[in-house]
Amino acid sequence: MKLGVNSGFSATRNCMLASPAVFRRQEFLIRCLGGYSSYQKGIQGVKSMAGPTSEADSENILRAITPTLDQSKHKGQAGKIAVIGGCREYTGAPYFAAISALKIGADLSHVFCTKDAAPVIKSYSPEIIVHPILEESYSVGDEDQASISSKVLAEVDKWMERFDCLVVGPGLGRDPFLLDCVSRIMKHARESSVPIVVDGDGLFLVTNCLDLVSDYPLAVLTPNVNEYKRLIQKVLNCEVNDEDSHGQLLSLAEQIGGVTILRKGKSDLITDGKTVKSVSIYGSPRRCGGQGDILSGSVAVFISWARKLRAAPDWDTSISPKNPTILGCVAGSTLLRKAASLAFEDKKRSTLTTDIIEYLGRSLEDICPVN
Amino acid sequence: MKLGVNSGFSATRNCMLASPAVFRRQEFLIRCLGGYSSYQKGIQGVKSMAGPTSEADSENILRAITPTLDQSKHKGQAGKIAVIGGCREYTGAPYFAAISALKIGADLSHVFCTKDAAPVIKSYSPEIIVHPILEESYSVGDEDQASISSKVLAEVDKWMERFDCLVVGPGLGRDPFLLDCVSRIMKHARESSVPIVVDGDGLFLVTNCLDLVSDYPLAVLTPNVNEYKRLIQKVLNCEVNDEDSHGQLLSLAEQIGGVTILRKGKSDLITDGKTVKSVSIYGSPRRCGGQGDILSGSVAVFISWARKLRAAPDWDTSISPKNPTILGCVAGSTLLRKAASLAFEDKKRSTLTTDIIEYLGRSLEDICPVN
Repeated sequence: MKLGVNSGFSATRNCMLASPAVFRRQEFLIRCLGGYSSYQKGIQGVKSMAGPTSEADSENILRAITPTLDQSKHKGQAGKIAVIGGCREYTGAPYFAAISALKIGADLSHVFCTKDAAPVIKSYSPEIIVHPILEESYSVGDEDQASISSKVLAEVDKWMERFDCLVVGPGLGRDPFLLDCVSRIMKHARESSVPIVVDGDGLFLVTNCLDLVSDYPLAVLTPNVNEYKRLIQKVLNCEVNDEDSHGQLLSLAEQIGGVTILRKGKSDLITDGKTVKSVSIYGSPRRCGGQGDILSGSVAVFISWARKLRAAPDWDTSISPKNPTILGCVAGSTLLRKAASLAFEDKKRSTLTTDIIEYLGRSLEDICPVN
Repeated sequence: MKLGVNSGFSATRNCMLASPAVFRRQEFLIRCLGGYSSYQKGIQGVKSMAGPTSEADSENILRAITPTLDQSKHKGQAGKIAVIGGCREYTGAPYFAAISALKIGADLSHVFCTKDAAPVIKSYSPEIIVHPILEESYSVGDEDQASISSKVLAEVDKWMERFDCLVVGPGLGRDPFLLDCVSRIMKHARESSVPIVVDGDGLFLVTNCLDLVSDYPLAVLTPNVNEYKRLIQKVLNCEVNDEDSHGQLLSLAEQIGGVTILRKGKSDLITDGKTVKSVSIYGSPRRCGGQGDILSGSVAVFISWARKLRAAPDWDTSISPKNPTILGCVAGSTLLRKAASLAFEDKKRSTLTTDIIEYLGRSLEDICPVN
C-alpha cells in the first residue's frame, strides 16, 4: 500500500523532477525486501517502546510533508516563520529557533524581541530579520504600559497575516509586562488561524493561562521534563505517572482541548488527544541547552509544509495520522534526532547546539534527497 | 588493583555503553605491558619532579570522574556552571571559561557580568546565557550603591541553588564597588554550599579578604606565578621558596583553612593542605593569555562531576585522593595540558586560546572515549 501512497504522491507532485518519484519507488522496493535501514531503525524504536504507543513511520512522514523544490516557486512559498522571544538575558534561544527554520528550508525567518536583544541576535546572523519591538517592565513606566502594549501589538499585526507559523517562547524571559504583550500577540495569531508552537518561557506563560491555547487545534506545546511536570500539575492536578505516560499525555491534551503536545524525552511522545505517536530513532545522549529551540523552529516549518500540502489536490490521503500538527512534530523530532546523532558522532562530549544546527541540512538530505 | 577499580566502576556505570568498560580493561593490559604512552609520560613527569610531591594518576582520575552519557538523562544533569566576571575592559576571559565548560560537557553555562560587557560576550557565542547585572562605580552614584548592590545580589540569588559550581574572577576587573558585590555573592554561594573556583581578579579580591574563602573546603584557588607570590606574601608573610615548593604550598592551604590550591606552572601543583599532587604530563610552551580561563571553567565542571559521582552508590572508593576539589583540579589540569599540546602541535607559535578550546573535545575523547 505504501507504494501506492508514495509513488502516487510523487507522480503528481514531481512532474518537474522525476528523480524523487524514482527514489520513493526504489525505497519501497528496498523496504519490501526488508533492507531499508531507517525503516528497520523505526521497527527497533517500536520494540524499545513500552506501553501501547506506536512508533511513527517517521522518515516517511518527513518525506511526505517536505515539498519538492521547483524553479518556478517564489520567495515565501517554502515558509515564513516568526519567533517571539529574546530579551535582555536570552539571545541564543531565539537565534537557534530562527536559524534552524532557515536551515531546514524556510524562505524567511523573523525574530520579534526586546530592544536590548536585537543587536546581539542580528550579530549572530545576517540571515534573520530581527524586530526590536518588545519591552520589559524596567524600561516602561506604569503610565506608558497601555500605549506601548498597543504599539507592540500593532507592529506584530502588520506582519501576522504573512506568517505560516509562530514560535512563542525561546528566550522570552518572564517579565510580566512582556508576557502580557505576548499573550495579546497569541490571541491575534489565533484570530488569524496562524499555528503557534509554544516552548520555553512560552510554556511558563501558557501553563499559567491555559485559555491562550485551549481549544485551539493549531497550538503545539513542546515541554521538556520540568515543563511537562508543571503542565501535569496545573492541568491534571497530579504528578507525572510514567507507568501510564500514554494515558496521562492523552488526558492532558484532551483536557487542554485538543492542542498537540510533543513531550520531549528519550523517546519523544506526540499527541493531539486522540492518538499518541512516538519518535525513538536516532538521538544523542548530549543534553546541551538549545536543542529544544532547534526543535521548535523545525516543527514550525514542518507544520507549515504539512498544512499547505494537505490542502493540495495531490495530497496523499492515506498518510496517517492526518493532523498536520502531529505530522509536523513527528518530522521535526525525527530531523533533530538525526542531526543530533550525526553531530554527536563527530563532536562527542563537546557537541554544542551550533554543531547540531550544522547537521540539519545533511540530515534532511539523507532522509529526503532533493534529487 | 586498578583493573578491579576501573572495570567494576565501568560495569556498574556503563550498563548502556559496553565499550568504555572494554576500553578500560584494554588500557589496563597495555599498562601492565608497560606500553601506555601517556602513563609513561606521567612517569617521566614524576622523575622530572623535585621534592616528595607525587604525580597524580591524571588520566585515570579524569576517566573516573567523567560521567557516562545516557539517553535517559535530561538537560542540566551534566552540569550547570556560572562565571562571575566580565566588565568594561575584559570580555574574553569570562567567555573562555564559560565556553570551555560547555565544550567539556556541561549542559548550561551562565555569565554574570556588567551591562557593557554583556552584548559583547553574548556575541561571541549564542550558547552562553549572559546576565548583564553587575555595575562598576562609574555608573553608580554613592547614594544608589546600597540599593543596586542588593538588586545585584537578588538577581544572582534567583539562580544560585541551580548552579553546580561558580567561577569567580575571569575578567572581573578591580572596581571597588563591583568587587564588593562579588564578595557578597561569594558569601551567598558558601551559604548554599556551591563550590567556588577563584582565578584572575577574583584572586586579587580573595588575597585582600581571605575570610571569603578561609575554612571553606569547596573553595579552589588557581594562582599563576604572580598571583601565587602575592598569596604567599600575604598569608605566610614571606617570599616564594622553590626549594620547598611542596611544604610551602601545604602551609599556604593549611593557613587559609583547607581550601584547595592549584599552583599553575611547568608542573601544576595541587593541594588541600593535606596532600600535594602534581600534574606534569603534556603541556605546551605557548603562554598566550586566556589558558587560565579554560582551566577555571574546566575545573568547575570536573568538580561538579566528582561531587555527583562521589555521592553515587557505585562510586569507586579506592580512587585517591578522595577530595572532589583535588580530583577536579587534577582532571582540569590534565585536560588543558593535553588540549594545549595538541593545539601547539597544530598551530605552533601562532597557537591562541581559541585554538586550545577547539581541542578540548578531542582531548577528552582521546583520554575518555564515549564509546
